[in-house]
Amino acid sequence: MKAIGTTGKSIHDFIEFELKKPELKAHDILVKVDGVSVNPVDTKIRNGLKNDLVEPKVLGWDGIGTVVEIGEAVTLFQVGDYVFWAGDVTRSGSNSEFQAVDERIVALAPKNLTAAEAVAMPLTSLTAYELLFEKLEITDNMNGKSILIINGAGGVGSVATQMAKNAGLTVIATASNQRAIDWVTHFGADFTVNHHQDLVEQVRGLGFEFVDYILILNAVLQHIAASCELIAPQGRIANIVEPGEAINLDKLAHKSASFSFEWMFTKSAFMTTDLQSQHEILTKISQWLDCGALKTTLTENLGAVSTDNIRKAHEMIEQGRTIGKIVLCQ
Amino acid sequence: MKAIGTTGKSIHDFIEFELKKPELKAHDILVKVDGVSVNPVDTKIRNGLKNDLVEPKVLGWDGIGTVVEIGEAVTLFQVGDYVFWAGDVTRSGSNSEFQAVDERIVALAPKNLTAAEAVAMPLTSLTAYELLFEKLEITDNMNGKSILIINGAGGVGSVATQMAKNAGLTVIATASNQRAIDWVTHFGADFTVNHHQDLVEQVRGLGFEFVDYILILNAVLQHIAASCELIAPQGRIANIVEPGEAINLDKLAHKSASFSFEWMFTKSAFMTTDLQSQHEILTKISQWLDCGALKTTLTENLGAVSTDNIRKAHEMIEQGRTIGKIVLCQ
Repeated sequence: MKAIGTTGKSIHDFIEFELKKPELKAHDILVKVDGVSVNPVDTKIRNGLKNDLVEPKVLGWDGIGTVVEIGEAVTLFQVGDYVFWAGDVTRSGSNSEFQAVDERIVALAPKNLTAAEAVAMPLTSLTAYELLFEKLEITDNMNGKSILIINGAGGVGSVATQMAKNAGLTVIATASNQRAIDWVTHFGADFTVNHHQDLVEQVRGLGFEFVDYILILNAVLQHIAASCELIAPQGRIANIVEPGEAINLDKLAHKSASFSFEWMFTKSAFMTTDLQSQHEILTKISQWLDCGALKTTLTENLGAVSTDNIRKAHEMIEQGRTIGKIVLCQ
Repeated sequence: MKAIGTTGKSIHDFIEFELKKPELKAHDILVKVDGVSVNPVDTKIRNGLKNDLVEPKVLGWDGIGTVVEIGEAVTLFQVGDYVFWAGDVTRSGSNSEFQAVDERIVALAPKNLTAAEAVAMPLTSLTAYELLFEKLEITDNMNGKSILIINGAGGVGSVATQMAKNAGLTVIATASNQRAIDWVTHFGADFTVNHHQDLVEQVRGLGFEFVDYILILNAVLQHIAASCELIAPQGRIANIVEPGEAINLDKLAHKSASFSFEWMFTKSAFMTTDLQSQHEILTKISQWLDCGALKTTLTENLGAVSTDNIRKAHEMIEQGRTIGKIVLCQ
């Protein structure tokens, strides 16, 4: 089968090559891939590669397509199903003609969205859902509670803003320019503040001494002090960024507050006993997308899954000013 | 009324003095104090005082005694009830003839224990309960899950070990000498390891690649690296020590693990909406003590609440080798 991989960390290392069609493990389904999206995890993994790889590394951790074969233990899907998934970072990605994926992390794709609109969603939606419902442990009825979403206009922030609003939370999203402010407001943010300015002063200026929940979705070292200051007694902070150095959490001590990490690949990387929860979460997300409770965050469809388009998407993400999601879907 | 306070941070600054009987707020009860216990919070607060205080500071954050008067909004207690409590660190402590305490953080004392056995328990039990059930969110049926309790023989550790065992957890408690090993084993620890030696190596040597939960009850800077290494994917660490400097939590990132602080005075200091949960928790603890599900951790009753005995208890705690609890109860 055809695949697009990279032989090294340079943005010029992408090549199209012939890859053996994967053999299925018991719980795998084989999917003919129609489209993919590109996430910061793609550029991060590319930048961590060695150069001159003999076996090119196939990236891509969002896919959509048709089930063409199923493993012997598969019960959740059958041949012909149209599915979407984020996948497993320890396996080959979705930038290929076919991909083998564990059924327990896949769901039926939404019916009322185009493939491009749908494939923008799995990785960011799984992350946002696990952040809010598993780490912060919000429920469906959070009226009167508040959340600060740092980097509200990014891929995860755009979904988290919608889910938080649907749960009844008052959402303060950070956005640093007019386009981002319009974007997060469109998705339901009640207030916006600028993460390049003093967050404590701005949030307090809106009348919030504390916020009940905080999501840190980028630049954790820059935002940790303000987050510890602003979090309410018994409040919860969740973060998707590895700090890379020590962080001072002293201000959480007398508030009995918590700091959680979220990485949506933990379940598949460690094959945790709740692996199938990602099938269930993604099914719920598919239903929310179908009924309009969740809107796609697609901003740009670059077209076919080609070396040129993948390179272009990586460039856009590395410039760091993308809003919403970039997909490749013809 | 008579009270014992300290005019400064020296262990020689305790004096007995005449203090105005407190006026009751709407939710306060006035209790005639029969006994108190001494906790590390007493020495910590004493060491943070200015010297030559005009109004001596009354310490003591565990008390037991009889309700002699109730505030106008009180519904949980009546005059004559025999109660125990840990109290509120923002108010005057229990080292006095009478103490005003908010009814919402008080419970009926256990009936089957002596006052000395009972007064050893409120602060450490509330801390252990909130750590396990509110921060780690364990349930009543944790069979197959494991917890590492760092400083298992201390006041909080001795209670947490019992509660964790009752919930079905496999308990690995740290203890650094034979007396401490015997003590934690008596309270149900399945395994002991020595916190002065390599914790990762010892826990792995017992056959645990990871543990599901970790309590850090002292020396967080010394134990944080091992804790981040040993915690399971999606595991939870809870800690009662303010680190005082930045800590490196990077190893939690790919495991989607969490780090929570617990301070049992948060609810009363911030008057949180769930303040009354401490009445409910302490009531449950009282019942557990009465039915034997929880054993007192009392090790030493120094007798009357006197300046000499309080000084002696502070000295013992500052030597840092106490096991279980010291009380003053005639």
